[in-house]
Amino acid sequence: MTPPDPRIRPATDDDWARIWPFFSTIVAAGETYAFPDDLTLETARGWWMSEPPSLTVVLEDDGQIVGSAKMGPNRPGRGDHVGTASFMVDPAASGRGVGRSLASYVVDWHREQGFRGIQFNAVVETNTAAVHLWQSCGFEIIGTVPGAFRSATHGEVGLHVMYLPLV
Amino acid sequence: MTPPDPRIRPATDDDWARIWPFFSTIVAAGETYAFPDDLTLETARGWWMSEPPSLTVVLEDDGQIVGSAKMGPNRPGRGDHVGTASFMVDPAASGRGVGRSLASYVVDWHREQGFRGIQFNAVVETNTAAVHLWQSCGFEIIGTVPGAFRSATHGEVGLHVMYLPLV
Repeated sequence: MTPPDPRIRPATDDDWARIWPFFSTIVAAGETYAFPDDLTLETARGWWMSEPPSLTVVLEDDGQIVGSAKMGPNRPGRGDHVGTASFMVDPAASGRGVGRSLASYVVDWHREQGFRGIQFNAVVETNTAAVHLWQSCGFEIIGTVPGAFRSATHGEVGLHVMYLPLV
Repeated sequence: MTPPDPRIRPATDDDWARIWPFFSTIVAAGETYAFPDDLTLETARGWWMSEPPSLTVVLEDDGQIVGSAKMGPNRPGRGDHVGTASFMVDPAASGRGVGRSLASYVVDWHREQGFRGIQFNAVVETNTAAVHLWQSCGFEIIGTVPGAFRSATHGEVGLHVMYLPLV
């Protein structure tokens, strides 16, 4: 286990307005996430900022928030021993390892919290940078729902379900 | 396409109190659904009763509501062309084809609404009656997340992702 990246910390309410610019850019690009089409600064807040037992974190580098992740139980009740997570990295900061650092944080957090695994429900198959990052963390593709995402560039593409066992 | 079962109709607000008894019995049995553990008549309502574009229906037989299904987009935005559904059948009415009739309704509804497929996100693998019913409707198991459901009887069992293409 690598030491935690000191640039990562829990998000505060005030951070949301600093996440929203790249969050909205990423959603509008239409390549990676199925969120409602008409989100605003205010209506998107509830889609990203989490309450316990879930957690939203930010990675702040040199005074700039350049990435964020949310994590927590994938299901309630009898499914709450498997976690899930979502990631947003400012495209202006791509290639600097922000996604990998957040991924490492998320895996460690789930392990510390006692989750038995982490499930990603919908990884866009053409988002190969993400797919390869998760595979390098040990995630495997459990299956792919064909054509379940309308990519702005690629049309209907599959959504991978990915899973990492932690015990 | 079989003609629609005339016993199936959209649920009204007043129906919820007639669904809740078997809904709560099924959830408490701990074999089929991951819902929060502490649901009440009032807090469970939002987990089952749907707003457009989703729909909740009931099957009323001889004055008794013996089953219910909810259906609608599985994801928002760029994922809203694939639907999903959940089903509850009063255990006292099992073996009478209520589940199959609701399944047929749900598949026809998605087809009429123009969905490109139906995805079930979490079919408990030990719920073999359900797995076989969906397979008989043409659903295939896309993949299985290992141990993702804590069955009251069987311990940690897998959750199938199942999919039926409609076009």
